Amino acid sequence: MPHVLVILSGCGVYDGSEIHEAVSTLLHLDRHGVKVTIAAPDVDQAQVVNHLSGEQVAEKRNVRIEAARIARGAAEDLATVSGSEFDAVILPGGFGAATNLCDFAVSGSGCQVNAEVKRVLEEAHHAGRPLGFICIAPTIAARLFPGTSLTIGSDEATAAAIEKMGARHAKRLTEEVCVDESNRIATTPAYMTAQGIGEVHRGIGNLVDQLLGMVGQPA
Amino acid sequence: MPHVLVILSGCGVYDGSEIHEAVSTLLHLDRHGVKVTIAAPDVDQAQVVNHLSGEQVAEKRNVRIEAARIARGAAEDLATVSGSEFDAVILPGGFGAATNLCDFAVSGSGCQVNAEVKRVLEEAHHAGRPLGFICIAPTIAARLFPGTSLTIGSDEATAAAIEKMGARHAKRLTEEVCVDESNRIATTPAYMTAQGIGEVHRGIGNLVDQLLGMVGQPA
Repeated sequence: MPHVLVILSGCGVYDGSEIHEAVSTLLHLDRHGVKVTIAAPDVDQAQVVNHLSGEQVAEKRNVRIEAARIARGAAEDLATVSGSEFDAVILPGGFGAATNLCDFAVSGSGCQVNAEVKRVLEEAHHAGRPLGFICIAPTIAARLFPGTSLTIGSDEATAAAIEKMGARHAKRLTEEVCVDESNRIATTPAYMTAQGIGEVHRGIGNLVDQLLGMVGQPA
Repeated sequence: MPHVLVILSGCGVYDGSEIHEAVSTLLHLDRHGVKVTIAAPDVDQAQVVNHLSGEQVAEKRNVRIEAARIARGAAEDLATVSGSEFDAVILPGGFGAATNLCDFAVSGSGCQVNAEVKRVLEEAHHAGRPLGFICIAPTIAARLFPGTSLTIGSDEATAAAIEKMGARHAKRLTEEVCVDESNRIATTPAYMTAQGIGEVHRGIGNLVDQLLGMVGQPA
C-alpha cells in the first residue's frame, strides 16, 4: 500500500490550507486506498484572517495546530518526517501555501521556502518520489525545482513570476493536470481558476490519479 | 433548482463543525446541482480546543467567523434567514453541533437549542421542508421534534438520551441513512461510527440523495 504525505499550511483559504482542496485530496487518496500522513510546520502563521470580513486580525495561530483541525488531531510536525519515507507528497493550496510554507504572497519570484518544507520536498524529489502541488502551491515547486513544467491555471502575473524563478508555466483548466514526467511533478489549478467545489474535486481527483500512477514507475 | 441551507457550527471537529462532514455535504449538494446557502449563529463558540493536544484553550472564537473558513467567506448570519425560504436544511456534525448549536454535550437530554437554530429549523419543518442531520446533530432533531425516528449510529448512552427526549433511536451503520418519512427527517452516523473519510463521504451522499428525493414530494 503506498504511503502518501500531505503537507498542510493551516486551516482556511485566506491564511492556511484551502479546506475544500485539502479534504478533496484526502477523499481521493482514500478512494485509492493509500495510507496517508498529514504534517505541517510547527510555526506561527504569517497572519490570521477573519474569513467573514477578509481582514487581518491581531491574533496568533500555529500552522500545525490549525492544520490539526483538518486532520482531526493527527498532524505531524514536519520537522520529524523525512521526504524519502513516503511514496508521494501532495501540497494542497490556500493562501497559507504562499504565506506559511513559503513567502510567495509577499516576495513573489524572490520567495523563500520554509526550511522544513524545502528539506522534505528535496528529500522526496531526490529519492524519485512524485510530488503533487495544487492551486498556488506550485510556486513552491518553481522555487525548489527550476526547469519544471507546471500550472497555476491562467493567471498571468503568477505565471510570469513562476517563469522568472526558472520554471515553465503551462495553462490548464480546473479539471486538467500538468504532468512533468521527467521531474515527476503534477500540478492542477483548483481554486486558482475554479468557480465551484465540484470542479475542484474532479481536478484534484485527476491529479491524485496521475500522481499515484507514477508511484513505483521508473522515471 | 432547489435551494438548500447548510447550518455550520464553527470549523473543526472538537469545537465546531466536523470539516470532512461539512465539505462532503457541500460536494454532494454540488453533485445534485442545487444552490447552497451556508449560515451559522453569530455567537462566541462555547469553547476553543487545540486540535493537536485535544485541550481547551483560553481563546475566544466566533461560530460564524470560523464557519466562514469552510464557506470561503460566505457564511450568513443565521438570524437573518428564514427556514421556509429553503427547500431543505442540513446540519453536519462535529462537537460544535452539540456545544454551539445546542448544549447536548453538557446537558444531555436536558439540552437547549440555540434560539436561531430552533427558529429556522421549526420554520422549515412547519413548512414541510425535509431536514438532514449528520453525526451528533440528530440530538437537535430529538429535542425539537419529539416522536421522530433518527440515528446517531450505535452509541448506547447517546441513543438513551435521545429516547429520553422523546425521539426513537434506530441503529445504523456509517453508510446507512435513517429516514423518518412522515417527519421528513433524514439522519446518518458519519464520524459517530466511521473509521475513515471515505465511508463518511458515502454515508452523507446517501443522506443527501434521500433528502433531495423528498424535496417537492407530498409528505
